[in-house]
Amino acid sequence: MKKADVVVIGGSAAGVCAAITAKRHYPEKSVMVIRCEEKVLIPCGIPYIFGTLGTSEKNLIPNAILEKNNIQLVIDIADSIDAASRTVALHSGESVQYEKLIIATGSKPIVPPIPGVEKKNIIAIEKDVDLLQGVLRDLKIITDLVIVGCGFIGVEFAEECKKGNPQLRISIVEMMRHCLQLVYDNEFCQKAEQALAAQGVSLVLDEKVEAFTGNEKVSGVRMKSGKEIKADMVILGIGASANAELAEKAGLELGPCKAVQVNRYMQTSDPHIFACGDCTEKVSFFDGKPSSMKLASIATMEARIAGANLFSSSRMNMGVIGVFSTVLGNAAFAAAGLTEEQAKKLGYNIVIGESEAVNRHPGDMPGAENMKVKLIFEAGTQVILGGQIYGAKSGGELINAISAFVHQRMTVNDLATFQLGTHPALTASPIVYQLVNAAEMAIKNLKSKKG
Amino acid sequence: MKKADVVVIGGSAAGVCAAITAKRHYPEKSVMVIRCEEKVLIPCGIPYIFGTLGTSEKNLIPNAILEKNNIQLVIDIADSIDAASRTVALHSGESVQYEKLIIATGSKPIVPPIPGVEKKNIIAIEKDVDLLQGVLRDLKIITDLVIVGCGFIGVEFAEECKKGNPQLRISIVEMMRHCLQLVYDNEFCQKAEQALAAQGVSLVLDEKVEAFTGNEKVSGVRMKSGKEIKADMVILGIGASANAELAEKAGLELGPCKAVQVNRYMQTSDPHIFACGDCTEKVSFFDGKPSSMKLASIATMEARIAGANLFSSSRMNMGVIGVFSTVLGNAAFAAAGLTEEQAKKLGYNIVIGESEAVNRHPGDMPGAENMKVKLIFEAGTQVILGGQIYGAKSGGELINAISAFVHQRMTVNDLATFQLGTHPALTASPIVYQLVNAAEMAIKNLKSKKG
Repeated sequence: MKKADVVVIGGSAAGVCAAITAKRHYPEKSVMVIRCEEKVLIPCGIPYIFGTLGTSEKNLIPNAILEKNNIQLVIDIADSIDAASRTVALHSGESVQYEKLIIATGSKPIVPPIPGVEKKNIIAIEKDVDLLQGVLRDLKIITDLVIVGCGFIGVEFAEECKKGNPQLRISIVEMMRHCLQLVYDNEFCQKAEQALAAQGVSLVLDEKVEAFTGNEKVSGVRMKSGKEIKADMVILGIGASANAELAEKAGLELGPCKAVQVNRYMQTSDPHIFACGDCTEKVSFFDGKPSSMKLASIATMEARIAGANLFSSSRMNMGVIGVFSTVLGNAAFAAAGLTEEQAKKLGYNIVIGESEAVNRHPGDMPGAENMKVKLIFEAGTQVILGGQIYGAKSGGELINAISAFVHQRMTVNDLATFQLGTHPALTASPIVYQLVNAAEMAIKNLKSKKG
Repeated sequence: MKKADVVVIGGSAAGVCAAITAKRHYPEKSVMVIRCEEKVLIPCGIPYIFGTLGTSEKNLIPNAILEKNNIQLVIDIADSIDAASRTVALHSGESVQYEKLIIATGSKPIVPPIPGVEKKNIIAIEKDVDLLQGVLRDLKIITDLVIVGCGFIGVEFAEECKKGNPQLRISIVEMMRHCLQLVYDNEFCQKAEQALAAQGVSLVLDEKVEAFTGNEKVSGVRMKSGKEIKADMVILGIGASANAELAEKAGLELGPCKAVQVNRYMQTSDPHIFACGDCTEKVSFFDGKPSSMKLASIATMEARIAGANLFSSSRMNMGVIGVFSTVLGNAAFAAAGLTEEQAKKLGYNIVIGESEAVNRHPGDMPGAENMKVKLIFEAGTQVILGGQIYGAKSGGELINAISAFVHQRMTVNDLATFQLGTHPALTASPIVYQLVNAAEMAIKNLKSKKG
C-alpha cells in the first residue's frame, strides 16, 4: 500500500494549489497528488488553444511545479474512498493511505437534454488533450460552427476559433437577452457584443435551442422560433456541474448544488477530508446563499484555505465575491462582486457611479486607451457591492483593487479619498482617475436621489 | 470686488481637484480658481516633454475641465489674504471675497546652497512652460548633461532627455548609494540602475556635489571625491519645498516642514481656510509623524477631502501611505507604503515575502512579461506595511490593490486567501499569482523565523 500524510485527488488548479499550500504550511508532511490525466490543461487557457496558441501542448500545467515543491505525483484513477480506514482505492488495484485527504475532482460540462444532443460533432468541452486536439483539427476543415451559450466559454471560443480559421462562419445561440449577462451589466454586455460582431461572429440572442438536426452527424441547430442554423460542429458552453460522485460514494454530505458540502474551513462532513474547487459547494460573500460560481481563481482561493487548515484551522472562507475578466476585440472586460442588475434583484437599494478616462496622462502618452469604471454601492450604508471595468488591459489588475474594496466592505467615501498610484506612462491622471471619480459620481447620484 | 462662495488659490492638481470636488459636493455654491499661470503643466508629465511628447504644449491640464464643471477661472497672482474680511488681494489690484478659501499653492524646487549654483544653465525644474521650452531647445544642442539627484525627477529626466537627443552624454549624481532609494528596496533600485545603464546613462552614486565650475555659464560639476564631470547644463532634481509664504503672511500656522498646518479635515488654523497639496503639512499613515512626501496623487486625495469638507466635515485624512510608480526601460516600478529598509529603520519587526511570475498564462500568451511582487509585513500582527512591484506595466494598476491592503491594514492571511481576478490574456495564473504567493512566502518565512 502507498502512503502519504496528505493525499490530494485532482491535479488541476485546485488540486495543485492545495498540494503546494499543504507542503508550504506543513513542510514535514509528505504530500501526494493523484490525478487521472497524463497531461493537465490550464482550464482558463482552453479557448486560446484554438487561435492564439494553436495547440493544446502550449496550454499545460507543468509537472515541474509539483516536483519543485517535493510533491509526489501518481497518475491513476481514484475509484473509491474508504473514510473509516482512511484509504483511497486506485483503478490500477493499488491503494493509498492518508492522514488528511483533499478532494479536488473539479467539474464536468453540462450536456443539456436537447433532442439530438448525442449526434457526432456536438462537443462538450472536457479538459481532455486528445478531445481538444481533435476539435482543433476539425475546426480547420468545417465551415459552420454553432456555439450554444454566450458566457465566457462561448465568447472566448468564438473569438479564438475565428482567429484559428478566419473563413469559419460562427454563430452563438444564447437564451438570455445579452451575452455575458450573468457577469456584466447591459452596457458592458453590449460592448462585448459589438466586439464579437466586428469580428464577424453572429449572435443569436434571446433564443432557445429546440433540437440538433442531422443524421449521425449534426448538420443544424433548430431554435424555438423555428429558425434553423447550419452547423458542421456544435460547441456546448452552458456551464459545468460538480464532479462529486467519488465523495458521495464515500458517504460525504452533498449540498444544495449537488457539490461536496464543506464548512467555512473547507472541511467536509468527515473531519479528515477537505474539499475545494469546482467539486465543492460555495456560498455568496454577500448573502451567504448557495452559489454555483466556478472559477479557477475561486478554486485556488479555496485550495489555499483547505491546504493551510489540514492540521490546524487558520483560514476561513468568506464566500465567493466573483472576480471575472476577459479580453474581447482588444478590450478588457473585468467585474467583481454584484452587478447593478444582480444587486437590484437581490433587493439592495443601490446607487451607482461611473467614470471614463484614458489610462495615460497626458493623453498623448503612448499606449493611451480608454478605461471605464462602474461602481455599485448600497445606498444607505454606502458600502461597495461591486464594480466593472471596460477598456485598457491593465483593468485586469485594477479589478483586484475593486475586489479588495468589496472584501473589506469599504464605503464610497473611503474610495473617494483612496490613495491611488498614478503615473503618466501607466494610468489616468490623479484628477480624472476612474476609480475615485466613479465613487465621487456615486455620491453625486446619492445626493440627487435624496434631494 | 469679485466674489465667490469658494475660492481656490492654485490651478495645478490640488487646486483643480479641490474646485471640482467643491462643485460636486456643493453644486449650489459658486467656485472660483485663481492661478498665476496662463497655461498649467501636468506636473508628473514634465519629464516626458523632453522625449516622448516633444513639447510642453502636449502636457497641459486643459481649462475645459474647469469650464465643464462651471468653475470660474481668474488668471492673476494672489498677493495676500485678509482672513478677517475674508478677501484675497490680487496683483492686478482687484480683490475677491470668499466664504471658504482653499490654498493649493504647491511647491517650488529646492536650490541647494552649493557654490556656483547661480551659474547660467543650472536649471531647477519649475512648472513654467517658457522655462521648459527653453530647456527643450538647449538640450538639442548641448553635449553633456548632469542631473543632480537620482529620485523620480532625476531618472525620468535622464531617460527622456536621452530619448529626445540620443547623442547627449548624461550623468546623474546622487548622494545616496542607490537611485530611487527612498522609495524602493535595493534589489528594485538595482533593476532601475541597470535599465538606466542600458540606455547609456552614467550613474555617479554615493557622491556629493561640492561645486559647480565654469564662468558665467556652468561647465562642470566637481564632487567631494575630487572627481569632475563636464556639464553644458545641470538639472537639479533634489526635491521641492512648500509654497507657504502666502499662508504665512496671512497669519496661518505653519508646521514642522514649513508647510501650511492642517488638521485631519484639511482645515488650517483659520476655520474658513483649507489647504491641500504640496503646500500642506502631511503626516505618515503609519506613525503619524511629519512627512515631506509630495505627489500629485496625494495632492488630489487631500483636495478631495478639503473640497468635500468645506461646509460640513465628512472626510478624514488618514495620512500618507505613499503610492509611487514609474517606467524605466520597458519595466514598471511601483511601490506603496513602507519599504523593507524604511520599516526596519522605524523599528518594525518585519517579515517579507516575494513572488515572481509572468503576467499571462500560459506563458505563450502574447504580451507575457515578468512581474515581481514583494510584500512587507509586521511579524507579530502580520499586518501589511507595504509592497513593491517590478516588471509588467499592469503593475501600475496592481499597486492600487496593495494600497487598499495597506489602507485596510489587512493581514498576511487575508492576502493569501485574497479573491483575485485572473485571465490568460491579462494576468498570471491563479496558481502562481504573485500577490497571493508573496503572502504565502511571507508566512513560510515567518515560520522559519520562529522555528
